Amino acid sequence: MNYISKLTQSVKKKNSYLCVGIDPDPHKLPEKFEKNVEGVFNFCREIIAATKEFTPAYKFNLAFFEIWGWQGWKILEELIALVPDDILLVGDAKRGDIGNSSQFYAKALTERLKFDSITLSPYLGSESILPFIEDENKGCFVLCVTSNPSGRELQDHGGNYPLYLRTAEICASLNQKGNVGMVMGATKPEQLIEVRQQFPTLPFLIPGVGTQGGEIQTAVDVCQKNGAGLINVSRGILFPEGQNFPENVIAAAKKYQQLFKIEG
Amino acid sequence: MNYISKLTQSVKKKNSYLCVGIDPDPHKLPEKFEKNVEGVFNFCREIIAATKEFTPAYKFNLAFFEIWGWQGWKILEELIALVPDDILLVGDAKRGDIGNSSQFYAKALTERLKFDSITLSPYLGSESILPFIEDENKGCFVLCVTSNPSGRELQDHGGNYPLYLRTAEICASLNQKGNVGMVMGATKPEQLIEVRQQFPTLPFLIPGVGTQGGEIQTAVDVCQKNGAGLINVSRGILFPEGQNFPENVIAAAKKYQQLFKIEG
Repeated sequence: MNYISKLTQSVKKKNSYLCVGIDPDPHKLPEKFEKNVEGVFNFCREIIAATKEFTPAYKFNLAFFEIWGWQGWKILEELIALVPDDILLVGDAKRGDIGNSSQFYAKALTERLKFDSITLSPYLGSESILPFIEDENKGCFVLCVTSNPSGRELQDHGGNYPLYLRTAEICASLNQKGNVGMVMGATKPEQLIEVRQQFPTLPFLIPGVGTQGGEIQTAVDVCQKNGAGLINVSRGILFPEGQNFPENVIAAAKKYQQLFKIEG
Repeated sequence: MNYISKLTQSVKKKNSYLCVGIDPDPHKLPEKFEKNVEGVFNFCREIIAATKEFTPAYKFNLAFFEIWGWQGWKILEELIALVPDDILLVGDAKRGDIGNSSQFYAKALTERLKFDSITLSPYLGSESILPFIEDENKGCFVLCVTSNPSGRELQDHGGNYPLYLRTAEICASLNQKGNVGMVMGATKPEQLIEVRQQFPTLPFLIPGVGTQGGEIQTAVDVCQKNGAGLINVSRGILFPEGQNFPENVIAAAKKYQQLFKIEG
């Protein structure tokens, strides 16, 4: 089964486009967790236990593990092993290199760390993406329109035919096996709708709702039109208001599962 | 002292723009090394011992360490500790993320792993670069024109004002502290010369000579014009012709040190 079919299946099973983003910022951990690598491991373990009933996918942000050096990679490997098989694992690594190196990154992330899909940066072109999509079971989400303001500096370059449409065109041409998706920020609803219309077959991974202020309804609509997609929430679920951990996390996960539910 | 000054000093000391690229492909190791993480560590240790006399810089390609999971990050940390203080350490990581995550990547790579500079992918704009250049002692090399053929798919986008010039413009504007450089492939000599002329103050990290066939003289010229820069050779030094290890590595390092020497 190809990656996009697996994604559709996982989304249907939980009846939601939710993706829980695991960005364990040590400064924000609840008091009961130590601000070291063991504390981060214990926090993430409890987050997974509290949210696995509600989410079809987790997105692990590698920056928050690499900050701990090799020990961060070690707990990442251990945490991945705790995730039930029917939940998709997105490795938010923003990788991208020339062919040989990209092949090693692909093996590192999808074979060693067992991620189902990886976020990729497209600056080096299709050669850098291909090693991640050789196996139809594994997929990628290529950065297209990102949620941060300075994303526009390059992504809008090119006048009437901005770079993000060129990126989307390349992604569509690479999607021969049904395993290429794109990262589309919810903070740019016009581009989200434009790219959805022009490229109807590619699933989106949508960050930027919640803390970053993106529009929830637009995000749900573009997933709905494709039949699949993931809407990521990190801080809104990991660090919600209120002191009762993990009850407040469970409540937040339930809330976003509902907000992002499949319509009709 | 800012990063570009440190770079100039290291280059002068070894009288060469050489950068030895540490890409330890396990399939290519000499027979005496086991094809596992210990073998890779031992190989790299001998490479450093054999070449440190001749090179002002090492570029560690993280893909070839991440393939071993957390153990790869561990040996990378151990290898970095073996490099003499007067040799610059480039972390070839091609990172780039939104602000918060990029800050964590910067800390992971420059504080934990103690790299002096990091290669970055600019798709997310200046926000993704800034955390790497807050400290003037630390630097970055931002992908501008890359050595691989498919690099042109995005980098040439934009007609008369191609994306790579936009990238260079952003890098120049960010270079307030003297610590921003760019990756410029030797396989694209016209762009190398064009960007050097338009942006005379930014040092280049130049891959693509040797195995990839880029022009050596052009690479040396553009470093010479700026007074600093690094020309990377990986396979040509790690895996040269001949069976006598490490004598053949020493001979290759000497050869490239001479080929890339400061002129006049």
